[in-house]
Amino acid sequence: MVITPKTRITGNRAAMTDTAFREVKDRLRVELVDLQQRCRAAAAFPIIIVVSGVQGAGGVDTLNLLNTWMDPRWIHTHAVDAPSDEERERPLFWRYWRSLPAAGNIGLYLDGWYGDAVAAHCRGHTTAAAFAQHLKRIAAFERTLADNGALIVKLWLNLDKNGQRRKVDEHRVDPVFGFRASDTAWPQSAPYDTFTAVAAKSRRATSTTQSPWHVIDGTDDNYRRASVLTILRDAIKAHRKSWRKKSKAAAKDIKHARKHDKKKGLLKTNRSGALAKLDLSKTMGPADYARAFRTCQTQLYELQKAARAVGLSSVIAFEGADAAGKGGAIRRLTYSLSARNYRVVPIAAPNDDERAHHYLWRFWRHVGRAGHMILFDRTWYGRVLVERVEHLITKEAWERSYSEINDFEAQLSEHGAVVLKFWLQIDPHEQLRRFKEREETPYKKWKITADDWRNRAKWDYYEAAVNDMVAATSTKHAPWHLIPANDKRYARIMIMNCVIEALERALHEQKAVAKTRASRRPKE
Amino acid sequence: MVITPKTRITGNRAAMTDTAFREVKDRLRVELVDLQQRCRAAAAFPIIIVVSGVQGAGGVDTLNLLNTWMDPRWIHTHAVDAPSDEERERPLFWRYWRSLPAAGNIGLYLDGWYGDAVAAHCRGHTTAAAFAQHLKRIAAFERTLADNGALIVKLWLNLDKNGQRRKVDEHRVDPVFGFRASDTAWPQSAPYDTFTAVAAKSRRATSTTQSPWHVIDGTDDNYRRASVLTILRDAIKAHRKSWRKKSKAAAKDIKHARKHDKKKGLLKTNRSGALAKLDLSKTMGPADYARAFRTCQTQLYELQKAARAVGLSSVIAFEGADAAGKGGAIRRLTYSLSARNYRVVPIAAPNDDERAHHYLWRFWRHVGRAGHMILFDRTWYGRVLVERVEHLITKEAWERSYSEINDFEAQLSEHGAVVLKFWLQIDPHEQLRRFKEREETPYKKWKITADDWRNRAKWDYYEAAVNDMVAATSTKHAPWHLIPANDKRYARIMIMNCVIEALERALHEQKAVAKTRASRRPKE
Repeated sequence: MVITPKTRITGNRAAMTDTAFREVKDRLRVELVDLQQRCRAAAAFPIIIVVSGVQGAGGVDTLNLLNTWMDPRWIHTHAVDAPSDEERERPLFWRYWRSLPAAGNIGLYLDGWYGDAVAAHCRGHTTAAAFAQHLKRIAAFERTLADNGALIVKLWLNLDKNGQRRKVDEHRVDPVFGFRASDTAWPQSAPYDTFTAVAAKSRRATSTTQSPWHVIDGTDDNYRRASVLTILRDAIKAHRKSWRKKSKAAAKDIKHARKHDKKKGLLKTNRSGALAKLDLSKTMGPADYARAFRTCQTQLYELQKAARAVGLSSVIAFEGADAAGKGGAIRRLTYSLSARNYRVVPIAAPNDDERAHHYLWRFWRHVGRAGHMILFDRTWYGRVLVERVEHLITKEAWERSYSEINDFEAQLSEHGAVVLKFWLQIDPHEQLRRFKEREETPYKKWKITADDWRNRAKWDYYEAAVNDMVAATSTKHAPWHLIPANDKRYARIMIMNCVIEALERALHEQKAVAKTRASRRPKE
Repeated sequence: MVITPKTRITGNRAAMTDTAFREVKDRLRVELVDLQQRCRAAAAFPIIIVVSGVQGAGGVDTLNLLNTWMDPRWIHTHAVDAPSDEERERPLFWRYWRSLPAAGNIGLYLDGWYGDAVAAHCRGHTTAAAFAQHLKRIAAFERTLADNGALIVKLWLNLDKNGQRRKVDEHRVDPVFGFRASDTAWPQSAPYDTFTAVAAKSRRATSTTQSPWHVIDGTDDNYRRASVLTILRDAIKAHRKSWRKKSKAAAKDIKHARKHDKKKGLLKTNRSGALAKLDLSKTMGPADYARAFRTCQTQLYELQKAARAVGLSSVIAFEGADAAGKGGAIRRLTYSLSARNYRVVPIAAPNDDERAHHYLWRFWRHVGRAGHMILFDRTWYGRVLVERVEHLITKEAWERSYSEINDFEAQLSEHGAVVLKFWLQIDPHEQLRRFKEREETPYKKWKITADDWRNRAKWDYYEAAVNDMVAATSTKHAPWHLIPANDKRYARIMIMNCVIEALERALHEQKAVAKTRASRRPKE
């Protein structure tokens, strides 16, 4: 609760006279607009504002007024409606990811990502455990955004039961603003007691230092508005300060790490990981390959058709040393797929729109609709590979990324998608041979750049990073498949077989689920 | 038809032996991949490939093989399915605009934007006139893309009636590729005769020098594949050459125009247009304003609620001299709207993703869902204002833009959206006063930049551009409203009243349409 000298407190209700409000309002507005402009000009971090609360407490009014008080051109307002079919065909959080503001902008959300969770539990559609799980996901979502620099301000507008009864019928003209949209377009998902109990649980589970809930009494409009402005101003001020401090510290860390590399050689760790155990001598003869290839193709063709028919999506990630044969493997894999069912997404350096967002944002954007297979040629693992090895981010940042990535993949998997990850490994001699071959073949020359030679010089450090990555992100729902790729034929067939197995299993499980659901369906 | 030395022609059917095909295929592939890489590296223009034809002629196979033959990472394949709800709520072409490839990439479309038109007419859902209108729109769409530099290649895969009968049942394994997806996933919208007649009409109406249809006989797979590769290679080669030539010519034109400006002063034309007739002395007193403002607010609130309820969208464009009060007018207008129903889109210099597309692409992207109001603070008219005055594009390009813009707005309007365009005009003295005021007010200082002073020096030339623009783009469905804005109060009320009138009229018409439809509905 925000107490100003002009606030009258009666019980747990607070009020402010029109005159008192007029006095503070204009000063606060000027400060806020000024802060908004500074944030926009710096484009350092996005601002995410969640407005929620009980009906009648002024949620819709708060949204409208923030758009009026600040510069609406840099505010994207989202009142979360029923999901579109494009949204329903992806994990729940896809719609929130796609709506996130770019650095320097404000995303203003009515109920934010809480609406779904609270409504479903109020209506008895989710168990206590599922609700708790949903809240954990929300907390993880907010943590990953905040860790990446976002400012998150969450406002809960409160009314007690009697207060709400009075407010809901109240349709008076506002004395200060002359006009006010009422909250009737913002229905509550359950009666007061149920709703507030469930909502309180959601707030308790998601109030963190980085993204705390602010509870504001909504009985008095003036008081509520002044509180919103004050909280926002203070939060932006504080965040700018801490952001600058953190950026400085990060820059220092990175500089230090680079210096250390130069002096003592790159930091080597974890040389005894999964890669060491890989048998790179595996090969496959041309005749065996031709036979296996033919069989795999037919199977893949049938499986993708079946997957498309039932709406089974897949996300297939390809990583590997330079010249390990990712592109060739992808082409062989897609050879027998129908082009309508898959899409190859090449990942290079982010463009400026992508740089203005969380690093996972651009991968979320590419998540496909039901029944599609998305093949990533290089992936979100760049975060813990090149960005780590080249010290583009701090150690703390790439270490944190493991769990963020696991959470991303878990969401894909929970929504029913097949998630497969391939690491293609070759040895340094084979890489050198392929580099030279590329340089000598006219139509392959474009494939080899100075970056490739630079990365090659850091072979050991990439190996350490890969070992760490595999250890930290091999999960049940999204395991790493390490592919010995010195022999291209062997690697390609191994990858095709992995995909076949995964699709077969998923289709089988989906049928099993459908069967169980059918037998459990209550009589109507 | 492509005749190679290895082609056997029998009647109007062409065939190629497996050996002959193997010989040409690899050379063609290398050439194509090389061209693709050159195009990608230069990122000069997008490549749009439309594959269509009769079922059995190998449409799906062509898609799959192009993805296999070339580098699939830079190909986006689109087999147009039923539109999603997000697509249905926007003009038909929105889904095609959103899918367009960036410069350097390939967009590969099965049936492209022809599928809708041909299917609807085959099934008797459209009259001959509506079909012709649809084809005109397609031709305009392709022309605007081609004029902006895109390469468009359209392939029609043909079979005669008997040939199709044989092909449809044919599910043999392919002798060269080992595997081939059949065309069964690509159904034809009508029996052979109807379908081919309607499709032929569509080709005749849309075959232009810039985007001609290539008809390829699909009886023999080898021949069809070799033809596709050859046509594509030749088209890309020729387009690269002509693109370079055109770019050079454009650069020369621009240089010449700039030189001319420096020597003789900017080219002044059309000083006697609409702006001269505007009475800038119009004012409104504070009391009248307060009264009118209150009335407008209540009306706007009710109208936006009604618009949301029936799914009526609006697109409102704000243009005007610097400091003419666009931002203030937008804020006053949105003051009484619910933030869930509108979105303010500020237009600044394009980001790199936007620069890699047609200039209208980023505006199409912002077109809102049903029931939403999108307010553009600066618009697509930048093309014929700043880009013209600053000679960022050639005279030919901005002159062409008028009709492209008219077509864009016509599509919005035809889909039922209200399209409103405001030009806010002030005189040079008032602008100077406001510039100075901004410089002296701490929290308005950020609003004024060196650009503003530079634009001011070109006042007369902007005036000429505005006069031309108003003359060329004032259409019945999207008229320009010229607002005398020396007095902010007067301008704001005038704008609000325009919006109110337009919404009232549209809601009224929509009701009238709904009524007529209801009375005409056939008994089921």
